[in-house]
Amino acid sequence: VHNPARDLLLLADEERAEVWAALIRSIESYLSSVDDLPVATAVEPLLVREALSNLDLSRGIGASEALEFAVRGLTDWQLHTPHPRYFGLFNPASSTMGVVADALVAAWNPQLAAWSHSQFPYEVERFCIGEFGAKLGLPQPVDGTFCSGGAEANHTALLLALSERFPSFRAGGIRSLEGQPALYVSEQAHHSSIKAARACGLGDDAVRIVPVDDDLRISLGALEERLEADLAAGLLPFLLVGTAGGTSAGSIDPLPELAEVASRHGIWFHVDGAWGAAAALVPELSHLLKGIHAADSVTFDAHKFLSVPMGAGMLLTSHDGALGRAFGVDTAYMPHRGDDPSLRDPYTHSLQWSRRHIGLKVFLTLATLGWDGYAEALRWQVRMGRLLRAKLLRAEWEVMNSTELPIVCFRPEGEGIDVQGLADRVVQSGQAWISATRLHGGAPALRACVTSYRTGEADLDELILILETARAEARKSVVRTEMRRPHP
Amino acid sequence: VHNPARDLLLLADEERAEVWAALIRSIESYLSSVDDLPVATAVEPLLVREALSNLDLSRGIGASEALEFAVRGLTDWQLHTPHPRYFGLFNPASSTMGVVADALVAAWNPQLAAWSHSQFPYEVERFCIGEFGAKLGLPQPVDGTFCSGGAEANHTALLLALSERFPSFRAGGIRSLEGQPALYVSEQAHHSSIKAARACGLGDDAVRIVPVDDDLRISLGALEERLEADLAAGLLPFLLVGTAGGTSAGSIDPLPELAEVASRHGIWFHVDGAWGAAAALVPELSHLLKGIHAADSVTFDAHKFLSVPMGAGMLLTSHDGALGRAFGVDTAYMPHRGDDPSLRDPYTHSLQWSRRHIGLKVFLTLATLGWDGYAEALRWQVRMGRLLRAKLLRAEWEVMNSTELPIVCFRPEGEGIDVQGLADRVVQSGQAWISATRLHGGAPALRACVTSYRTGEADLDELILILETARAEARKSVVRTEMRRPHP
Repeated sequence: VHNPARDLLLLADEERAEVWAALIRSIESYLSSVDDLPVATAVEPLLVREALSNLDLSRGIGASEALEFAVRGLTDWQLHTPHPRYFGLFNPASSTMGVVADALVAAWNPQLAAWSHSQFPYEVERFCIGEFGAKLGLPQPVDGTFCSGGAEANHTALLLALSERFPSFRAGGIRSLEGQPALYVSEQAHHSSIKAARACGLGDDAVRIVPVDDDLRISLGALEERLEADLAAGLLPFLLVGTAGGTSAGSIDPLPELAEVASRHGIWFHVDGAWGAAAALVPELSHLLKGIHAADSVTFDAHKFLSVPMGAGMLLTSHDGALGRAFGVDTAYMPHRGDDPSLRDPYTHSLQWSRRHIGLKVFLTLATLGWDGYAEALRWQVRMGRLLRAKLLRAEWEVMNSTELPIVCFRPEGEGIDVQGLADRVVQSGQAWISATRLHGGAPALRACVTSYRTGEADLDELILILETARAEARKSVVRTEMRRPHP
Repeated sequence: VHNPARDLLLLADEERAEVWAALIRSIESYLSSVDDLPVATAVEPLLVREALSNLDLSRGIGASEALEFAVRGLTDWQLHTPHPRYFGLFNPASSTMGVVADALVAAWNPQLAAWSHSQFPYEVERFCIGEFGAKLGLPQPVDGTFCSGGAEANHTALLLALSERFPSFRAGGIRSLEGQPALYVSEQAHHSSIKAARACGLGDDAVRIVPVDDDLRISLGALEERLEADLAAGLLPFLLVGTAGGTSAGSIDPLPELAEVASRHGIWFHVDGAWGAAAALVPELSHLLKGIHAADSVTFDAHKFLSVPMGAGMLLTSHDGALGRAFGVDTAYMPHRGDDPSLRDPYTHSLQWSRRHIGLKVFLTLATLGWDGYAEALRWQVRMGRLLRAKLLRAEWEVMNSTELPIVCFRPEGEGIDVQGLADRVVQSGQAWISATRLHGGAPALRACVTSYRTGEADLDELILILETARAEARKSVVRTEMRRPHP
């Protein structure tokens, strides 16, 4: 009997051959032309919706047409994170081997819930966790899990901290504790901590946001004050988050001092190194992470500075067994692994259940380049960051942050120019993408981060030109506005 | 100046061309040979670890060798979920267009945090959410989000319920409520509810596990009793989960009755249709889901019955705005979308922050096949399930569950045969994969589920043969054991 499901879902052999060829052609065409595309364009949602609703979904449009539709949509109707002049959030150009890995994973479709289903994927991920843990100097054996992204990794850390600090948390929840738990992050920390605290039933108010000093690093004095006040008020401090590479300005908290504070108060010390932990791969930068070895857990996103496609978060922890205590459950229907303590069923060690094999893209990229290659690639981006900083200073922008990482916060010298408006002008040019943020005391800043390994010096020069044009236009409109003002 | 990062991460043009060719060759070779591989083999972890630690990670091994290593590992050292005789957990053979989509997403690397970054991906996902919501009969506009999997979708539902039911939950957490919240699931529900309840700070004990009737459906009488007792004890019931397609036996709770109970008590009604909601795509099966339109939220995993690669969970909700209330945060560094209320920044509507474009694999598979094609493909698998059931009965196995979905629970007639031992024998044969579970009253059962669209009738016959051999061997060993027993 003929199996129609197989033809429909696998496609006939010739059709599949055509689709693979078209796929590779499309990817190659994108890779060779992305530098010339506008980084971002204004997209009219109604146009996209119309295109979608015009498809004949009842009968389907076939593989070639569907592929073509997706390629056109991805190319014409979105911002291009791989673009060399995307100086944006921490979204990289993908490594080719990361793309290869995601395709392999999709085709083999391993299920990372039960060890007995996915021994090779399990070992690959265990290997990566161990290797990256060692690079950070975490005491061996390092445990950990791959995550959908940094938000899940930070969320996982919060749950680890709750579960290890409060034995009744697992069965009884937050109401079984003797008081309200509190956690500590800096003003420059990523807001995924707030989402995680809310999701863990602590509430947004449990996140104590500590001011930073002039270098955008958490103020140790303010932290101690806050801790003392909270303890006096009967709160239960249980987690201190150090940021290693803040989203706005790449700032790195004083990790050794934070480790000491956490240890003195008996609280869990988590380092959010989603972007910045990559400094551990470059010998001359690893000093930036001094103290990270003392963390109870670390967030490290390979889909940021390591240029692996999204999402490849890692949560590393030096507490063997903690993940199992936090996430373990028993079921009748899941296969049971053997008794070897080095084998774990991933679903008992993570927020997820059946999980995509995330680690392969990290492994394949690392195995291809080696640590030496990775260090060289990161060095290039760091060098571009340094150059950008120098060029901005030469073009008379005020640089507002100080870091060896390739992220520059800056503003026009003088008064009256709307920083968000400047960022908008750059974005609207289509020639580059930067954003606006706020630093210490709410000071508005432009933010340019070298995230694409494609970025070269010519791209920096083009950004400077675009910025100068935007600044000149903005100054003109400031003058016009002032001239229109009635005299007093 | 030469950019070494580009060569290292993108690879040189010729090297990349070779890698693409090797990738497609490897996938095609796997697709054409997987039917002949052992479904599962005993894997010695130390062998895998040795292979990994023998790699020269300092200098890297280059793209071709790395790819070959991964392909060998994925092929030789794991269970094959795409295998036609993988009668296993809900892990499918991947649709080819799903593989294509995952490769596109990896190469373009859209970032689904900010709308302004990913308009096309955002609209594609919004479109899919709307279309699948309509198939389930949820009132429009349907809101929702793609998730890493069903565990995240169920977790999201739990947070929606908490956030909508308890206004102080967001800022004050669980301790700010007037009592301990409680949720209700059946014995046959997926245990991700327990993980989610724990992760939300409710504690495992907040999950009230309600017994099932002889058809493995939640007992309405027991549910009412439990609710009344909890209310009397001052607990705060807030969430009722109906299962549509239980993991063990495919059971579907009486959804209309559950909707009525939930409505009467003013609690959120979530349906976990991770696998079973796919019945909505087959007109003659959609009656199984009667009542699902009344759900406040639904979990529907496209990486289960819809044969999309992992992970493609969907959380659908008829409460417009609820996701934004549950997950919204404000930051200085994220770009702001416009004021159009149909545009959302995905990071404010999901547990995740920067997210992979999950929806493309669902969209591309659906657009290629159409709803008609999907119905036909699902019908085939349902037909194989029916055939398997008939063949098992003919071969004198006792079938223990009753469902139109392709999942059969069964046991050998007569006493004394260890069911887990039988499953192990089948797995060890390498010729098929089934598992053991426990049904009503803890009765052990064998479980075979048609999850691969490759499964044909010959595969069913082979499974029956393997089962008969395993049963005969098991009977022999029962007899041997009994002969060895001393007479009383």
